[in-house]
Amino acid sequence: MPDVRIPTQRAQRFLTAAFDKLGLPPDDAATVARLMTEAEAQGSDGHGVIRLIPYARRIRAGGMNLKPDIRVVKEKAAMALIDGDNGMGHLVMQRAAELAIRKAKQCGIAWVGARLSNHAGPASLYARMVQQQDMIGMYYAVGNANHLPPWGGLDMLLSTNPIAVAVPAGEEPPIVLDMATTVAAYGKVKAKAQRGEQMPEGWMIDRTGQPLTDPKRADEGFLMPIGGYKGYGLALVVGILAGTLNGAAMGSETIDFNKDDVTVTNTGQAIVAIDPDAFGELDEFKARVDKLIRELRASERMPGVDRIWLPGEQSHAKRIANERDGLLLPPALLAQLDTFAREVGITNILETT
Amino acid sequence: MPDVRIPTQRAQRFLTAAFDKLGLPPDDAATVARLMTEAEAQGSDGHGVIRLIPYARRIRAGGMNLKPDIRVVKEKAAMALIDGDNGMGHLVMQRAAELAIRKAKQCGIAWVGARLSNHAGPASLYARMVQQQDMIGMYYAVGNANHLPPWGGLDMLLSTNPIAVAVPAGEEPPIVLDMATTVAAYGKVKAKAQRGEQMPEGWMIDRTGQPLTDPKRADEGFLMPIGGYKGYGLALVVGILAGTLNGAAMGSETIDFNKDDVTVTNTGQAIVAIDPDAFGELDEFKARVDKLIRELRASERMPGVDRIWLPGEQSHAKRIANERDGLLLPPALLAQLDTFAREVGITNILETT
Repeated sequence: MPDVRIPTQRAQRFLTAAFDKLGLPPDDAATVARLMTEAEAQGSDGHGVIRLIPYARRIRAGGMNLKPDIRVVKEKAAMALIDGDNGMGHLVMQRAAELAIRKAKQCGIAWVGARLSNHAGPASLYARMVQQQDMIGMYYAVGNANHLPPWGGLDMLLSTNPIAVAVPAGEEPPIVLDMATTVAAYGKVKAKAQRGEQMPEGWMIDRTGQPLTDPKRADEGFLMPIGGYKGYGLALVVGILAGTLNGAAMGSETIDFNKDDVTVTNTGQAIVAIDPDAFGELDEFKARVDKLIRELRASERMPGVDRIWLPGEQSHAKRIANERDGLLLPPALLAQLDTFAREVGITNILETT
Repeated sequence: MPDVRIPTQRAQRFLTAAFDKLGLPPDDAATVARLMTEAEAQGSDGHGVIRLIPYARRIRAGGMNLKPDIRVVKEKAAMALIDGDNGMGHLVMQRAAELAIRKAKQCGIAWVGARLSNHAGPASLYARMVQQQDMIGMYYAVGNANHLPPWGGLDMLLSTNPIAVAVPAGEEPPIVLDMATTVAAYGKVKAKAQRGEQMPEGWMIDRTGQPLTDPKRADEGFLMPIGGYKGYGLALVVGILAGTLNGAAMGSETIDFNKDDVTVTNTGQAIVAIDPDAFGELDEFKARVDKLIRELRASERMPGVDRIWLPGEQSHAKRIANERDGLLLPPALLAQLDTFAREVGITNILETT
């Protein structure tokens, strides 16, 4: 396979055709394809095009509902609970973000939770939807596999439950924090194993509490939460906000979507929209964010540090570069996509127009 | 000074008399005294009785407004912005919590921010006020001294900006997470210095990025954020939510309240109330939280670990023990309180009835 760049529009059309063949209604196929392409373009490659294959596997196994009746089951002025009817998470959370934005315009702030959702890609996608409407967006999710025991424990009852916060700025790029509550996301461990590299100390420990640095032995240990017991607490409360509150899976109820393509995951997520215009003038808020960004960036630097980055600034730069130059997909992934295209009878991504 | 236990009621009466003498209106003196005693009883000793001395110093220097006009300056159905008029933070944030609870009953969720507030004690105090009304409480604050540079930087532009989340349970104690976004709070560094102990690696680094373990050299370095750049991102977004959004101090605007007793701190805080009853049945939510707590606690344990703790469980146990047995205040603090009592002409805490 050649090392080629794929224009984002072409990747999006290929993914749309793929989900169409897998049985999603045309609009839904287009939405999922657009969000997966966005994820890839911003550098969230573990949540981008690579996910087509596991999503297809789950869809074919009957583990996701292709024609879900995504609906609001509980509602008050500033909140809603959405039942995703086991549809693709992207569809559920786009709906949730739109509703949160609408309600926050009225009430100043809104919180929309979801249950019976599924994996929805990177947390920042949905926080950014809110930020693009000039509001602060926050997103919480229960991860789709447990890799974290309670602090001092051995039973993996918690996931890497991520948090995203996206803040609109004025002339500066938005601040977009997107983080797992573990030191490393599990995808990074898998990547180290694939490349035959060792992990740094601090990513994982074994069942006696010793550092585990061989990614091939990952099954013998656990991910470390950030800040020790603090990260355990964060993973727990994020899981309660995104899962338990919504009646979604949490703790031992979480389905490992790597190992089980059939069981309904009952994934829980939540999106929050906060309207800075309710707290004062939007332009003044953006100017204060700009000022803050600039003073952090202008900080004196440690020896050897070229630049101070703001959260989301590197993703922002990648998004611009990839929109301009196209997506650089690894040859192994291109080969998988080629096989998939032949299986379902669609044009290969390299030949998609 | 004898190593005696002070009944919480007696400590509260002593503090009420102290703030009365310092010029607070009687109701306000009683409120601050009650909240400081609560902080002490739950084991937040860095935010408890010990704070009387620095609060008194700031009050006498004219750095806090004793008769503040604490008022709502912006309001929508699910949010409010409170101007604290430079009053004591406890008064501002109790008002904010009460308002958030009332609005969340109507709207399902509410967010109340504050500016021109002051240090308000431990974050968990206000999250717990919400939890005691059977809601999930969340609290964010901008810390009152910058000890954290942006990741890779040397200028201390960020504080230990804390997060608290309190979740009501059924038969189990509530889950209460209360954490700084740094590995150690600065108070812990000061405590190590007082005891002549070294700090573990990971708490602080010096200006070349090397571990700093001598707490007497704390001025030569910085606190480390939890999870490296992740904790930097968390401290930043917490500061934006609690400070920038409210028009409160953030970044270089933060006043170091250890070094400056006079300048208005313009402290920013925020409290969120989420009503589980809006998402389903409250009792079912509490039962799910109980189930989660019990399965985490029952996890198989690492060698040498006696017990799995839930966030807030140790504070809960301390609160019960201290309410029963009285507060154990260190002799050095009792001596300070004795001096203070003689200065202002009130009965010593040991003789308060």
